[in-house]
Amino acid sequence: MNLVEQTIAGIEPADTYFRNRAKERLDMLTMPHWALGRLMDLAMDLAGMTGSMNPKFDNRVIVTMAGDHGVTAEGVSKYPAEVTVQMVHNFLRGGAGINALARTVKADVVVVDMGVAGEIEGVEGHLNFVSRRIRPGTDNMGVGPAMTREEAILAVRAGIEIAHELSFSYSLFGTGDMGIGNTTPSSAIVAAFTGQPPEKVTGRGTGIEDDQFLHKVEVIKKILKVNNPDPRDPWDVLSKIGGFEIGGIAGLILGAASRRKPVLIDGFISTAGALIAASICPASRDYMIAAHRSVEQGHIIALDHLGAKPLLNLDMRLGEGTGAALAMTLVDAAVRILTEVATFEEASVSQANV
Amino acid sequence: MNLVEQTIAGIEPADTYFRNRAKERLDMLTMPHWALGRLMDLAMDLAGMTGSMNPKFDNRVIVTMAGDHGVTAEGVSKYPAEVTVQMVHNFLRGGAGINALARTVKADVVVVDMGVAGEIEGVEGHLNFVSRRIRPGTDNMGVGPAMTREEAILAVRAGIEIAHELSFSYSLFGTGDMGIGNTTPSSAIVAAFTGQPPEKVTGRGTGIEDDQFLHKVEVIKKILKVNNPDPRDPWDVLSKIGGFEIGGIAGLILGAASRRKPVLIDGFISTAGALIAASICPASRDYMIAAHRSVEQGHIIALDHLGAKPLLNLDMRLGEGTGAALAMTLVDAAVRILTEVATFEEASVSQANV
Repeated sequence: MNLVEQTIAGIEPADTYFRNRAKERLDMLTMPHWALGRLMDLAMDLAGMTGSMNPKFDNRVIVTMAGDHGVTAEGVSKYPAEVTVQMVHNFLRGGAGINALARTVKADVVVVDMGVAGEIEGVEGHLNFVSRRIRPGTDNMGVGPAMTREEAILAVRAGIEIAHELSFSYSLFGTGDMGIGNTTPSSAIVAAFTGQPPEKVTGRGTGIEDDQFLHKVEVIKKILKVNNPDPRDPWDVLSKIGGFEIGGIAGLILGAASRRKPVLIDGFISTAGALIAASICPASRDYMIAAHRSVEQGHIIALDHLGAKPLLNLDMRLGEGTGAALAMTLVDAAVRILTEVATFEEASVSQANV
Repeated sequence: MNLVEQTIAGIEPADTYFRNRAKERLDMLTMPHWALGRLMDLAMDLAGMTGSMNPKFDNRVIVTMAGDHGVTAEGVSKYPAEVTVQMVHNFLRGGAGINALARTVKADVVVVDMGVAGEIEGVEGHLNFVSRRIRPGTDNMGVGPAMTREEAILAVRAGIEIAHELSFSYSLFGTGDMGIGNTTPSSAIVAAFTGQPPEKVTGRGTGIEDDQFLHKVEVIKKILKVNNPDPRDPWDVLSKIGGFEIGGIAGLILGAASRRKPVLIDGFISTAGALIAASICPASRDYMIAAHRSVEQGHIIALDHLGAKPLLNLDMRLGEGTGAALAMTLVDAAVRILTEVATFEEASVSQANV
């Protein structure tokens, strides 16, 4: 077996015994039953993922995968493609949105070049930079497949390897993305897997206007027609209408799941990666936590398809891992509820009359 | 002027100059315009509240106000009234939901006895306990006013004094409540101020069943009929259909606002207190941040009436200040976005084509 097959084979469903033990304790806490709602659901899930009643998530990391997209030639974004490389430098200097939000929750940010259009210069030896370039950007999926099937496997494999390496240092993962044009492949992927029409799963990306939006929908229709991806074959979907960073995100999720580490799924692009991961290995879903609901209209459709309910809804649409970072606090809160709140008996508090 | 009048006179609207300066910077950050949505709205609001482009919120406190309610004689809760005192002890030992969530966000918890039914024993010298007992629980508002007008003023004044004292140590406040039966006065207050029928603003509280719910609605109708509170007079509303802890929360908000300190409003009971505060002094609204949307169905109606939009929605219904604590992370995130994210010019990132 190669690494990809090995990793997939190593992904086990969440542990029912620990999930139930957590539920048992949460049921007895000094509060009206389940009064902390979704934080308690999350606490139960985390116990099941980690197989622990006291999971430790002090070391956490956001992995921001960057890649460029040939489909920008179709005029789907209002930003020039050079912004991808510029933003990688911004991440590495600590000046981007994800850096601010990662510092808020004491997470590190690891930036991965999965295949940006230009060279990333002057970053040799940077602690938080990993180069796993497939090549400088995908081909234009408006006229043919974005990449070869082999490249798709390489991208997922890179994500898996990064997850395995980072698993020695980190116990909680968050996904992130950077890539001008990448809402277009994401919309195409969501359309392919869910069967929803492009109009329903296409959004404004970085902020295009009405006429550009209509154009983007037409481009996505063309992409699906030209490539005719097979939704039963995740490698076909990823290679024809994906992106290098989307493959990297899928791999990161699979690798983390195989190590029983929870992964916070960021926004729309990360969820496209999650759909690929879930299609490659359905059990990986047990390790995914939907961090937030993005403004992109296709996002909630993608999350529904995954069977995931987002934790936050703050009108965000930045990507980079910002939603995943913010939701790490909810993971902290969930663990503290499980481990620090007294039961009725421990605290000698009277219970409800039933 | 007495302290209450002085405090009200000292509440100034948020600072438009700093709000605009913050907006100006946020407009230029290296991300699609306003891509961090409500966190950016919050950053702008915080600059306006504090009159600063770099507000510091390292020292934060949740003030959990406890009080008992004579209206429990009407059978509106499934928990016995003795739970209020037991939970105060649980708070002071650090074993309650609010303690776990406050630790998550590095907030202190100060517990105030505004008038619980039993004595709080063995807490002399406890760092985080304040006794401001009006008396051991309100009267049954099902048969007459909950308290005198003088007591209502005393309760608000106590909250104001606590805010002034804590303002020397803390720059960010969160409200919290504890009091068996206190969703009943809260529903009555929301009905009185919004004019909505009791059916629409009554919820399940700690988790009553269908028949108890119908009974609770009838009790709230009786409360409103017996007392006929005047919604144009907040002191009339508070004294007739309020609670000591609800008055304390209103005072805390007014005191914090007079010191230009942001106050995170927790759930349903805290929002009832916020309605009283806003009615006493409309400018105090500028310093309120709606932390979350509670499961209690009247909560969103109360927030709409305040013109406030909740940040979180996690199916929580515990009170104690748990929602306020959790939202403190969003305050941290907002400040970091304002102060740590580079502008396009600072980071040499290309802007959108327009």
